[in-house]
Amino acid sequence: MAVEVLALAGGVGGAKLALGFARILPPDKLAIVVNTGDDESFYGLHVSPDLDTVMYTLAGLANPDTGWGLVGDTFNTLDMLGRYGVDTWFSLGDRDLATHIHRTQLLQQGATLSEVTAELCSRLGVDHCVAPMSDQPVRTFLTTPSGELAMQDYFVRQRCEPRVTGVKYEGSESATPSPVLRSAMEEAKLLVLCPSNPYLSVGPILSIPGVREGLESFAGLRVAVSPIVGGSALRGPAAKMMGELGEDVSCAAVARQYKGITDAFLIDHQDSGLASDIEEMGINAVPADIIMETEADKVALAERIMGLAANMS
Amino acid sequence: MAVEVLALAGGVGGAKLALGFARILPPDKLAIVVNTGDDESFYGLHVSPDLDTVMYTLAGLANPDTGWGLVGDTFNTLDMLGRYGVDTWFSLGDRDLATHIHRTQLLQQGATLSEVTAELCSRLGVDHCVAPMSDQPVRTFLTTPSGELAMQDYFVRQRCEPRVTGVKYEGSESATPSPVLRSAMEEAKLLVLCPSNPYLSVGPILSIPGVREGLESFAGLRVAVSPIVGGSALRGPAAKMMGELGEDVSCAAVARQYKGITDAFLIDHQDSGLASDIEEMGINAVPADIIMETEADKVALAERIMGLAANMS
Repeated sequence: MAVEVLALAGGVGGAKLALGFARILPPDKLAIVVNTGDDESFYGLHVSPDLDTVMYTLAGLANPDTGWGLVGDTFNTLDMLGRYGVDTWFSLGDRDLATHIHRTQLLQQGATLSEVTAELCSRLGVDHCVAPMSDQPVRTFLTTPSGELAMQDYFVRQRCEPRVTGVKYEGSESATPSPVLRSAMEEAKLLVLCPSNPYLSVGPILSIPGVREGLESFAGLRVAVSPIVGGSALRGPAAKMMGELGEDVSCAAVARQYKGITDAFLIDHQDSGLASDIEEMGINAVPADIIMETEADKVALAERIMGLAANMS
Repeated sequence: MAVEVLALAGGVGGAKLALGFARILPPDKLAIVVNTGDDESFYGLHVSPDLDTVMYTLAGLANPDTGWGLVGDTFNTLDMLGRYGVDTWFSLGDRDLATHIHRTQLLQQGATLSEVTAELCSRLGVDHCVAPMSDQPVRTFLTTPSGELAMQDYFVRQRCEPRVTGVKYEGSESATPSPVLRSAMEEAKLLVLCPSNPYLSVGPILSIPGVREGLESFAGLRVAVSPIVGGSALRGPAAKMMGELGEDVSCAAVARQYKGITDAFLIDHQDSGLASDIEEMGINAVPADIIMETEADKVALAERIMGLAANMS
């Protein structure tokens, strides 16, 4: 059975909409492809923050308060690492560490990140397909007045405070799409760009050679959901970065980045006034309830997008 | 200032006597050199069970009930590893894992096991010198009816149940003594073979080329403490193994193994009847209180040994 929906996701926002789709689609119809530009080695362990956020969310284990890690986790290993003089600015819980320990060991044994992700998901009872964007390393770096910062350094240690003047995706030129991404781009009838940061979550995916081209020639409907509502980001530094990079801070500016790979762009009702700007780009602007708080919100948004696809076909 | 006392130790018994010496000697006078034949990679992490037992004991952090790990530790990472389908027969607590995570990372960065051990000890406030027997891997294997078993497999997973017909120390032929062991063999005035398993703790140390020879020509007094009291081991499988390997199960049989590297052999008062057998080997048999339960017992035994050395010099 071929995949019908390909969702491209980053962290929390992407995980929310991915959960909505997972609730209404059987496992073989949905492929969730996740940004790995945030991946980094901490304490000698391979950490994949966005993959884990999506996996834990689908497994019902995500910590809703933090946006990372496992609900109810403890931090005893990290405390002890601190006692050893390790700089523990990147917080990892004890149960969360098991994910990174096991992933690191499987990677060292020669498994690909795709294989490791499938194994971890399967063990946590996640039946839907979650896959990395690539099995090769791509690392997002931010250019700031104090130099180039790796993504987690910027995002976690420096709390997104430095002014960003550029973004680059190191390694992307020699990366290839993961097997799931490659086949889903061919097979799927609906592409969804989840409401994730266009620079830090969707950007890395699009930077992989062949992905933007694959989405430009995608055979089905392509829908994006704005991560910007009323001039601010629902979560994270997207709005701040847009301003610093000289863009308007608006859903329309996000739509502009997705021009050529998006047919319909879902914006919040409060941004309806920008619909005509988006329509001028040749993108169908669709006002909708895009703020997802409850699980019902997530399912409703996924259903709304499925409805668009049904209307178009 | 040169090291005056070199103590060779395995796990719990060795750690007890090492603690006794640490309580009465300034840091620069004592070198504790520890068996690493039990070292093994678990969950991708380098675990050094005997080094950790000694280090945690000296740091006042050892779990007195188990003989391994940290007092009051939790096991959340291990639980989660189990959820991922990992066979978690080798139990490691959350705080204990920090030791292995940090050690593994430092080794991967190119530090020697000696350097890593010194760093970990320093961070835990252990001022006395604790060092591995070698910076190269030596692995103890037991020959049993069901094949060759690595030390922890035999000791932990199989609870010492298989019959042992042979012991070998893989890698020892190309290992060299650690810098601390090499210099302490030259400098020290007192050598102490702690009451540790002769096959599993002291044997691996003696298997390293140059060590037995170095102890044979050791310039000071050489004292061993029997791990066997009244025909049974104070802890662990030493007595069972001695029987399976065709030895008498007695302190005298241990003394025989240490012939040529021991001047005085401390036996328990209840084994005084074996003193003449030991004396016949040219080893001075010294009945003493060698069962260490309280910290006072450990200090008293260390003082007793120091007293022997003072009498001889």
